[in-house]
Amino acid sequence: MPLWKIYHPAGTYNAEDKKLLAEKITGLYASIPLPKFYVVVIFEEMARDSCFVGGEPNNNFIRFKVDHIARTLPGPVIREWWIRKIDEIIASHVKERGYDWEVSIDETPFDLWSLQGEIPPPFESVAEKRWVEENRASSSTAAEKLPVRLTLTPGLAER
Amino acid sequence: MPLWKIYHPAGTYNAEDKKLLAEKITGLYASIPLPKFYVVVIFEEMARDSCFVGGEPNNNFIRFKVDHIARTLPGPVIREWWIRKIDEIIASHVKERGYDWEVSIDETPFDLWSLQGEIPPPFESVAEKRWVEENRASSSTAAEKLPVRLTLTPGLAER
Amino acid sequence: MPLWKIYHPAGTYNAEDKKLLAEKITGLYASIPLPKFYVVVIFEEMARDSCFVGGEPNNNFIRFKVDHIARTLPGPVIREWWIRKIDEIIASHVKERGYDWEVSIDETPFDLWSLQGEIPPPFESVAEKRWVEENRASSSTAAEKLPVRLTLTPGLAER
Repeated sequence: MPLWKIYHPAGTYNAEDKKLLAEKITGLYASIPLPKFYVVVIFEEMARDSCFVGGEPNNNFIRFKVDHIARTLPGPVIREWWIRKIDEIIASHVKERGYDWEVSIDETPFDLWSLQGEIPPPFESVAEKRWVEENRASSSTAAEKLPVRLTLTPGLAER
Repeated sequence: MPLWKIYHPAGTYNAEDKKLLAEKITGLYASIPLPKFYVVVIFEEMARDSCFVGGEPNNNFIRFKVDHIARTLPGPVIREWWIRKIDEIIASHVKERGYDWEVSIDETPFDLWSLQGEIPPPFESVAEKRWVEENRASSSTAAEKLPVRLTLTPGLAER
Repeated sequence: MPLWKIYHPAGTYNAEDKKLLAEKITGLYASIPLPKFYVVVIFEEMARDSCFVGGEPNNNFIRFKVDHIARTLPGPVIREWWIRKIDEIIASHVKERGYDWEVSIDETPFDLWSLQGEIPPPFESVAEKRWVEENRASSSTAAEKLPVRLTLTPGLAER
């Protein structure tokens, strides 16, 4: 989580371009924060005349297909902000180079996911915080699966 | 939206075949109507002996994997009709050429989607109608996001 | 259903490795039971330096991306069991060979799916049972769409 598949025409990006774009994408998620190693970016070349937009071959089109697993973006404000944020981040790799592009994100089940054989700890848990720091998967105890800020009676009361 | 990934054995389709199939698929969505440029079709070759069906290599198999974003197909009647319609449309490219094939469609969030940096306008809105006519993404005003047929008190009353 | 996409570095698996892994995966689903031909496994090579984990190129990473269509895994106990079971099954092809890996499963709509032009019969129906036995798609009668164990008044009563 997330998994970014980037379908691009052959020859669009060199190794440096790819690294830079992957770093930008990773930085966005790391700022949430999420463990950096959660972010997987796979670049995939499309063969010439194998991509069609509106029924016409388009050899100038880049399609970003993203799966979110660890987080569901809550509510319309944050969802719109996120999709615009992504567009900012990728602009120098698409718009500013004259490509056409499209981005879509799917949200897939958190509980059907594993990393290095470990089931990732709950959002905002003690173990997730440790994973952020250590930047690798490891087993976690039951106590570590509790939230970092544990509140048994959440509500409107002042804290 | 939609994104069609067509996984096929190497050498299955030439440039003309691909164009014809992409046009047929595009035509189906354009008839809804949807902006034609919403329809993206990507053909992807599978390397020999890299596709298995039932545990056996199948070098004669074509897998259509479709994401719908802009529309959710409402109710069982329309969903079944749609999946049968697709089968009709692709028949001359699969069944009639002796290939095995499978089709599946996922429906992903409308609000986590952007095109050329624009968030697509709502279904059946004035702006969407304009996008259909212009066949390209552009910004839209708040007023254009209203439905083409605006009814503030929908119900059973005669119109 | 299921569709397994296995993204791996070039040269990771030879034909025999692929066959063995596809057979293991197929065996797991066949044990439910499901028709064996429902299980599609596609291996896809990632070009060198085209896969990034945490912003760094990782040419030692294998990403399993699975779509479930025919079945939704019911409840947390079975979902966790399944994701662990998969890890067991793939261990000899990833962990034991020193690769990094990640697995995620999406669950997509049962009613937007067709196989050889046939809409697959309902879960645990007479027709599905026949498909398991015959290991191929065929048309089914209305009566065959009923459950193998038909109970019109399910409840807590002893049977």
